[in-house]
Formats: sequence, structure tokens, C-alpha cells
Amino acid sequence: MTQLSTFSRRQFLAGVGASALTLPSLTDAFGNPLPTAQPGRKLGIALVGLGSYSKNQLAPALQQTKNCRLAGIVTGTPAKAEEWMKKYDIPKANVYDYKTFDRIADNKDIDVVYVVLPNSMHREYVVRAAQAGKHVICEKPMAIMPQECQEMIDACKKANKQLAVGYRLHYEPFTQEAMRLGQQKVFGPIKFVESSDGFRIGDPGQWRMKKALAGGGPLMDVGIYAVQGARYVTGEEPISVTAQFGPKTEPQKFKDVEETLFWQFQFPSGAVSNSTTSYTAGVERLYASCQDGWFELSPAFGYGPLKGRTSKGPIEKPIVNHQAMHMDGVCEVLLQNKTLPDHITGAEGMRDVKLLQAIYQAAETGRKIDLKA
Amino acid sequence: MTQLSTFSRRQFLAGVGASALTLPSLTDAFGNPLPTAQPGRKLGIALVGLGSYSKNQLAPALQQTKNCRLAGIVTGTPAKAEEWMKKYDIPKANVYDYKTFDRIADNKDIDVVYVVLPNSMHREYVVRAAQAGKHVICEKPMAIMPQECQEMIDACKKANKQLAVGYRLHYEPFTQEAMRLGQQKVFGPIKFVESSDGFRIGDPGQWRMKKALAGGGPLMDVGIYAVQGARYVTGEEPISVTAQFGPKTEPQKFKDVEETLFWQFQFPSGAVSNSTTSYTAGVERLYASCQDGWFELSPAFGYGPLKGRTSKGPIEKPIVNHQAMHMDGVCEVLLQNKTLPDHITGAEGMRDVKLLQAIYQAAETGRKIDLKA
Repeated sequence: MTQLSTFSRRQFLAGVGASALTLPSLTDAFGNPLPTAQPGRKLGIALVGLGSYSKNQLAPALQQTKNCRLAGIVTGTPAKAEEWMKKYDIPKANVYDYKTFDRIADNKDIDVVYVVLPNSMHREYVVRAAQAGKHVICEKPMAIMPQECQEMIDACKKANKQLAVGYRLHYEPFTQEAMRLGQQKVFGPIKFVESSDGFRIGDPGQWRMKKALAGGGPLMDVGIYAVQGARYVTGEEPISVTAQFGPKTEPQKFKDVEETLFWQFQFPSGAVSNSTTSYTAGVERLYASCQDGWFELSPAFGYGPLKGRTSKGPIEKPIVNHQAMHMDGVCEVLLQNKTLPDHITGAEGMRDVKLLQAIYQAAETGRKIDLKA
Repeated sequence: MTQLSTFSRRQFLAGVGASALTLPSLTDAFGNPLPTAQPGRKLGIALVGLGSYSKNQLAPALQQTKNCRLAGIVTGTPAKAEEWMKKYDIPKANVYDYKTFDRIADNKDIDVVYVVLPNSMHREYVVRAAQAGKHVICEKPMAIMPQECQEMIDACKKANKQLAVGYRLHYEPFTQEAMRLGQQKVFGPIKFVESSDGFRIGDPGQWRMKKALAGGGPLMDVGIYAVQGARYVTGEEPISVTAQFGPKTEPQKFKDVEETLFWQFQFPSGAVSNSTTSYTAGVERLYASCQDGWFELSPAFGYGPLKGRTSKGPIEKPIVNHQAMHMDGVCEVLLQNKTLPDHITGAEGMRDVKLLQAIYQAAETGRKIDLKA
């Protein structure tokens, strides 16, 4: 399959699991090996928020990681705490709720706090984690508004701790190959990118459908992947954006957030992109049309396996566990006391959040928004 | 290959030719057999304009047709006349130039005039062909402005002759299957269509780059296929459109026509579409996301072979010569003195021309254009 089918994408992905995937040596997008950490030492990660992504992706991935392990949990639900302690052999001392969370400062088992809460809560828990003296990984979107991102960056800087965003695809081999093909102009300069991500959402009661918690609809949730895709294949920052809302075909279900959204970026080189995100329609593809050929990932943004091809033939790359690669990659750098690469940090998270807000502004005003300022 | 590569699409297509393709029995989009004409009688077709489409597609296709044959030519270039007479054994009496064209009225060998001229000349030659008492096939786009289309329709009606537009894909099996999958809701109602067609144009001196002759850029030439695609998979007429011009990255080359154009349709059912056309970037795909699955043609609009797949697996259909199927299909109906199906007539051509002009209006004004009026 090359497009995620409709029904519930999350249901589908939940079934994929993280079992038995190999972890190749870590390399950057251009195939250079990343430095290796001292063997044996694993950073302790505490997951904040035990929703489906923690349960079905991160916890299983942490059973495969070399540089980190699942050391603690933060949850408001005692029954979940019991279940996770048993399943993952987590000592009671490493289990927190949202009131006791700040005591994590005294816990030597926890090196990294991974914030997996609804978007509107990212700022608060990233700031509190930094103040507790922990490195932080924050799920995407980093926050709802750019100002929140700035506060998060500042808090980590002040605490002398590093802040990563959950950009797992930067560690995914098909994605790395797409970055290389685009940024190194293997098929000549990119002229046009079609980058879209949408799925048919299930439970209308979930937090993703509430603007106060999610900050928006599919754009905040999966549209951000389409934004990232256009940016990382071109290696450029957009200079303008236009955008259009689709109709609300289920007004009651979508009373709070958009159902479908289209946007178009222009890049400094003259490359353009056209994107769609939706909670009503399944679509998942990253296509780059270059002067002398093309390349495509489809699926491009889900938890895998991804699939890719070019005008010269299929892209052959190992199938990996995205979340394990990402957390191992981040923790490898932390273990070496080196600085995280810019493209997975809060600075990158903030770039995306600014673009998400510019897309909404363009759609709401019907005007082309200048992004050069 | 599933996307037309860059360089020149026309160069590529010129090499494909029309040789040795089988012609299956004619059926409509829903697989019903079309009535069979009396054996032996072939309508005589005269091609008006001997450019690359006549030379590389239509004339070779007419060597394979059952219901029609290449009987005459109309050209302003004596050397071309000589070459074609020799190559296709055309008697001198069936060769016209643009001054002598109207004398075709007296030529019993010619039943159908196929207008393959630049877009701005379609109106005049369709009207003159009708006045000469011939049935007419007109290449797409039918004309530049809707008013021209109306004059063409009226002229044919007055002459009691039929008018078809060169919508070859309505006779192409992969396209017919996509129509069936969408219109019969085989995967449930369509939610979203991505329908795009663009290529990297070669010779900047050709008529397609001149607004006075072409009426516009890639939208008039290949974007019309993307418009058709969204319409024939949904089986609906759009109720509104937004559109955006891409930048002119080669201002001298594109001083007269647009380089890239995006547009979004909304349909009465709530389905939406997002489209791109370009003379700078290669892209060719028709993707429909439905409630319970998806289907895709890619390539979707070129001269073939097309390729298709669905959420349940590949689409398997015979590879045919589009032009031969189209001309045979039109001539079969004419031989039976029946009425051409609406979706290949001037009425359909005029619907597309209205939409092309609405797309330009939306892009020029930056406003959503209401199409319900």
C-alpha cells in the first residue's frame, strides 16, 4: 500500500507495532556516520502523557533503543500507572502525576523528559521539565503559537539543557534519501513539490478535535509533516504562502477545527509547493518534480514502512523503527555532551509553528502572506 | 514510469507512436458495449493543421481505425502537403489550404473535419467546417472563451451536423475504470481529488507560449486534463473555485502565459480537489481519496500507456491507442445517425472552457469564484 487507507489511520498504525525492526548504524541525511557513544550507558527517559503515541509507538520503541531506556512515566490516571509499572518494570519512585511532576528534579534515573501531551500543554511541561534540570524531547507541533516556542527555547537555554522536537523522520532512511536527492540536486533543481498528509479521523471526542487543546485541526496534527516535507526536500525556507479552507462537510464534527486545508509555498529558488491536509480524506505523499527527473515517497510520513521511487527506479532503504532511531539519535548526542543538530531542535520546531500560523492567517484572510519579514 | 519525466513531454510522446496497439471492443465508461456499425463503410476524415499532434498521433491512429480513415488534409505548407500525399496516398483533390478550405463542401470523400489548429483558430474552422456541411471534431480546449464555444455549437446545430471535442480519454479503459470507481462510489463517496498535469516545455517559440494563439499557458494545454479528471471521477460539476499563480521563474520565456497555476474546486457532495498545472514542472496524476479506499491513475492523462491502482490492488486494463479509440467511437455513432454522448460534445467542451476562464479569474482576483450561477 502506498497511500494510507481511510478508516482510521491511527487504528492502522497501532497494529504495525515496533517489533523486530532492525536498527542500522546512525547516519545523517548525507550518509555520514554519526559519532558513537560510550557503550553501556543508557539515558533514562520519562514519558509525560500515556496516550496512544506513548503506548503504541514510544514505549515499544524504547525496548529496542541502545542509548536510552524507558525509566519513568508521568500520568494523571492511576490505573495507567499500575499497568505500565507492571508491563515495563518501572519502579514506583519513577512514577509521577501532574502535581508531583516537578519532583522529577531529584530523580537521578531520569535524564530526559519526553512531552507527549496535547499541543496546548507542551509549553508548560517543557518549561517545567527544563526547570527540573532535564533535557527535553517535545512532540510535534512544538506548540500552538511561536511565542510559546520562544519561551520553551529560553527555559531550556536558561537551564543549560537541550530541547529536541519529535522529528523522527529526520532519522528515517527513505526520508534521508529524499533530503539528499533534493538538497544535493541529484535530479537538478526542484521545480515543484506536492506534499500532502491527511487521514479520516475516528473518535470525534478526542483532544485533536478541540481547538483549545490542539490549536487547530489536521494542519497541526499531520499537515505539519507536509510542511516539513516541502522544507526538507528543497532545503529552503518558504518566502510566501497562500492557503484555502475546504468546506465543512460534517459541521458538527468539525465545529472547532478545520476539516481540510490547502496551501501553496514559494521558495527563494523559484520552487513551489502545493499541499493538502485533511481529517476527512486519506492522502499521504511527498513528490518532488526536478529539472531532470522526479522522486516520490508514498507513504511519506506515517510510522512506516515508507516506500520511495524516483524517475530512475525504486528507492531501496532499510525499514527501521522511526521512534527508536529518533530517540537513540538524540540520546547519542546528549551522551556525548554535544549540541543537537539544528533541524531537530526547538529552533526548527518554532520555524514550523510560525509557518502553521501563517497558513491559517493566509486561509483566513484570503491573502498571500509574505514570510520574508 | 509513472510520472512523465521532465525535459520535453512532447518529445517523449512523439517517440511512442501508435503502432501495434490492439483495439478492444468499444464500451462506454460502465462497460456496456456500444452498438456496432455496418461493416465496411469508413467515414473520411480531413485533418486541419498538420502539426505534431496530427503527424505523430492522429495520422498513425487513422491507420488502425475501423470506422474512419484519413481522407484529406488542410495545410498552409505545400511541402507538408506533398509529404502527406505521398506517405498516406491522399489524392490531390482532397488537399486544401486555408483559402480553398471551404470548397471541402463539395468533396464527397470527406465526412468529418478534425480541427487540430492553435486554440484561437478553433472557432473559425469549426464554424467553416459546419457551414461546409461536415461533422466536426475539435481538439481541446474547444476554444478560448465560452462565447466562441456557443458560436461553434450554434453553427453545427444550424448545419444539422454533430460536433465532438477531442476527449480521447473518455474512450481509454483505465480512465473509464476511474470514472466507474468514482461515479459508482465503489470505495464510497469521493472526499478529495488530487488531479495535476504539467510538463517541462521545450521550444519557447511554439504557439503554445503565445497568449494570442493559445489563450493561456499550461492550463489551456494540459491543465484542462486535470479539470476533466476531477469532473469525471466525481461525476459532479464544481460549485466554486480558488486559484493561485506560481511565480515566473523564467520571466522572458513566460512573458505571455502563466508558468504554473494551482486551483481548488468544491463539488456539491462536499468533495474537494486540489490541482497543479505547469510548463516548468513535470507532474501527472489523478488520485481520488474515498470514504473507504482510494484509486489513482499515474500517468493519468498522457498518450499512454496509463497505469492505475487502488487501495485493493493494481488496475488491469488493455493498453489502447487513445486517438484511434476516440475517432472510431465518434464515427461509429455518426455512421449510425445517432446522437453523440453529451460528455464528448461541444456542450462538454464549453463546460471546461468556462471552468478554465473561472480559474484564471480566481487567480487574477485572489477571490473564490462562485460557479453555481
